[in-house]
Amino acid sequence: MDNYKAYLGNVIYSQDKDTLVVKEKSYILVQDGIVQGIFKDLPEGFPQENIIDWGNNLIIPGFSDMHVHASQFLQRGMGMDKKLLDWLNTYTYPTEAKFQDKEHAKKIYGLFVDELVRQGTLHVNCFSSIHYEASEILFELLLERGLFAFTGKLNMDQNSPEFYLEDTESSLRSTEVFISNYRQKGNVQAAIVPRFTITCSEELLAGLGKLAQQYGTPVHSHMCEAISTIKASKELFPNYKNEAEVFYHNNLLGQTPTIMAHCIFMDDDVVQLMQNPNCMAVHCPDATANINAGGIMPVKKLLEMGINLAIGSDIGSGASLSIARGIASTIQHSKIRNMFDPQWEAVNLSEAFYMATRSGGRYFNKVGAFDKGYHFNALVIDDSNFPGENLTSLERLERFCYAGDDRNIVMRYIVGKELII
Amino acid sequence: MDNYKAYLGNVIYSQDKDTLVVKEKSYILVQDGIVQGIFKDLPEGFPQENIIDWGNNLIIPGFSDMHVHASQFLQRGMGMDKKLLDWLNTYTYPTEAKFQDKEHAKKIYGLFVDELVRQGTLHVNCFSSIHYEASEILFELLLERGLFAFTGKLNMDQNSPEFYLEDTESSLRSTEVFISNYRQKGNVQAAIVPRFTITCSEELLAGLGKLAQQYGTPVHSHMCEAISTIKASKELFPNYKNEAEVFYHNNLLGQTPTIMAHCIFMDDDVVQLMQNPNCMAVHCPDATANINAGGIMPVKKLLEMGINLAIGSDIGSGASLSIARGIASTIQHSKIRNMFDPQWEAVNLSEAFYMATRSGGRYFNKVGAFDKGYHFNALVIDDSNFPGENLTSLERLERFCYAGDDRNIVMRYIVGKELII
Repeated sequence: MDNYKAYLGNVIYSQDKDTLVVKEKSYILVQDGIVQGIFKDLPEGFPQENIIDWGNNLIIPGFSDMHVHASQFLQRGMGMDKKLLDWLNTYTYPTEAKFQDKEHAKKIYGLFVDELVRQGTLHVNCFSSIHYEASEILFELLLERGLFAFTGKLNMDQNSPEFYLEDTESSLRSTEVFISNYRQKGNVQAAIVPRFTITCSEELLAGLGKLAQQYGTPVHSHMCEAISTIKASKELFPNYKNEAEVFYHNNLLGQTPTIMAHCIFMDDDVVQLMQNPNCMAVHCPDATANINAGGIMPVKKLLEMGINLAIGSDIGSGASLSIARGIASTIQHSKIRNMFDPQWEAVNLSEAFYMATRSGGRYFNKVGAFDKGYHFNALVIDDSNFPGENLTSLERLERFCYAGDDRNIVMRYIVGKELII
Repeated sequence: MDNYKAYLGNVIYSQDKDTLVVKEKSYILVQDGIVQGIFKDLPEGFPQENIIDWGNNLIIPGFSDMHVHASQFLQRGMGMDKKLLDWLNTYTYPTEAKFQDKEHAKKIYGLFVDELVRQGTLHVNCFSSIHYEASEILFELLLERGLFAFTGKLNMDQNSPEFYLEDTESSLRSTEVFISNYRQKGNVQAAIVPRFTITCSEELLAGLGKLAQQYGTPVHSHMCEAISTIKASKELFPNYKNEAEVFYHNNLLGQTPTIMAHCIFMDDDVVQLMQNPNCMAVHCPDATANINAGGIMPVKKLLEMGINLAIGSDIGSGASLSIARGIASTIQHSKIRNMFDPQWEAVNLSEAFYMATRSGGRYFNKVGAFDKGYHFNALVIDDSNFPGENLTSLERLERFCYAGDDRNIVMRYIVGKELII
């Protein structure tokens, strides 16, 4: 039983959106980094030295951040009083343009990946910048850390400032080179990442869709985010009813695994396209509130309609990489939404935790829960700095999401290996 | 010039709601803990050893938390999916009832005051429990730490569980004893704190109002918080048009300094009562969102109407004692409100910072800004863990509020004295 380990603690994970599995003072049995089951007792003769006793701490799955801009790490928490397009032009494009410098990319992406790990995000879907070499650097850093990740070179060939723009042909060519070279290594996979419809010509989108289909590559973009961007998109693509159609008819929505950030304003026919099991909509509560887009995703409605939902930090319009905080914000903001638009209830802890773990992790190979056969990608939560008696494990989980921070995460495991920060 | 000190750093404070004063690389000159002015250079011969050089760090006023329940410190971040009255009965009243035990009060209030200081809250208006002795303990702890504070024994003689209720006469008697013994010591002052109209008989309210007038004691309560509580209050006090009238006609609204938490649902005549310069309304954004009250304070509207506004953490329905986070939440939640009710704009950093510092501190003697004659109650913010070049001090302040935490506060001063955590 040498390659078996048993992790003792109060275990919590999502079964489905409505069910949190809680196994207090139990052992997660792990063989070569893969969960074998959760047990109250171990078989007789199980080697004492293979037991990792986390005492009264909580053990939960690692978080999944399904929409984040690595290249905006430096601008978090600034310019928050601006509107989306102003904010992009004033802060974001100049910040991203700096990633032409490889040394800058190494430094900032290194800090970004460190911060992901510190916050307990073990699975991540992240934008780079338009720069090929910087995107390579990000891919390699994610790989080195052992994270489960999608990332790719950003595409944008129009409606962007002079200093931060590609020509269509070289954008397509370098994307194809990136995919061929970095299709999948370890648990990191190349993705196709058009910024959003406004900044991509139809020629570019069509070319990217062709690559997605040819290589079976996942797609990551923004959709139905703000009244202003929806309007601009409609003017640029008058032959399509909406942004979803632009993506769909260019083979970028559901033909391969597709992750669309925001999805705030969706008509019924867009909802129908997103009900494809290949698609996922990512709610980024803090980002959406900070850079006023005119609405909040109707999370409860989309959950009830069976759309795959996840949580994203969306740095830099989001300010914190903590997905635990993203869980609390998802619940809070859905409550505020409900106060003004009572037709959809607020979401609860079970639903938001599901989005942040099991549901968010669905494109990565068996992560985000502790079912048999899942990778043991886990966080140990020590909340002994909070006094309190006779609390349930669920109350402690809720308190960690609302009031805790990275200091409460005392261990991170990926495929059973300790991840050191 | 022995009793002079000069604190060098990037100084920021509020002039008024629309004006943030920023003095980069400047000296705050302080005599015996009182600000004398802010200067680019010091007079010749100023003793080198009296200069405290904070380098590139920010120096800002200490925060004011104008509505918080010290007795709910243990329950933060739990039961957040419940409605207000359910949450009070399930979590709050049992938690508060434990403060009958003096040892428990010493321990938990000690932790509470430590956490206030850690989060940079130097001025606080806090509820205790109904217990006389626990309220003494809280008063003494605030005094020992040198905080500027209002606190008092909580009153409630009806509509509360059997185990957490006073009789009217003893409630009034012990409140008067508390006020006589603890009227003002150092910078801590006794307040009169009826919980809310629902839990107070008219006899109790009238008696408290009489005490307030007799001793010139400030009043602290909740008002216009939730649809459910407004309705219940209307049934209990059918002779009054609304909660504000109940307080007003019992001498508990504006006759002495008055601090009312929440003020979400106010009719025009209530707004008019609150326009009294003696009154302050406290916005508790996280608390209001967590324990769904049915609305969000229309902050911009009330600011424009000239009502004194402050920010409160409102632990335990709020989960974090950080008022920096309260600033970010105030802005975020006002943006979400604006998305659904566009008639009032969102508030900006200047307005929210003003609420959290200068405006929040108005009842305490000259705190919350660095005008000449103000107490040097200040925080030093070291944000060197955030990389970034060529940022303005205001961008750094904004980033601290959105993305920083207590680790960025490297020094706290009260009346010029270092406060050690």
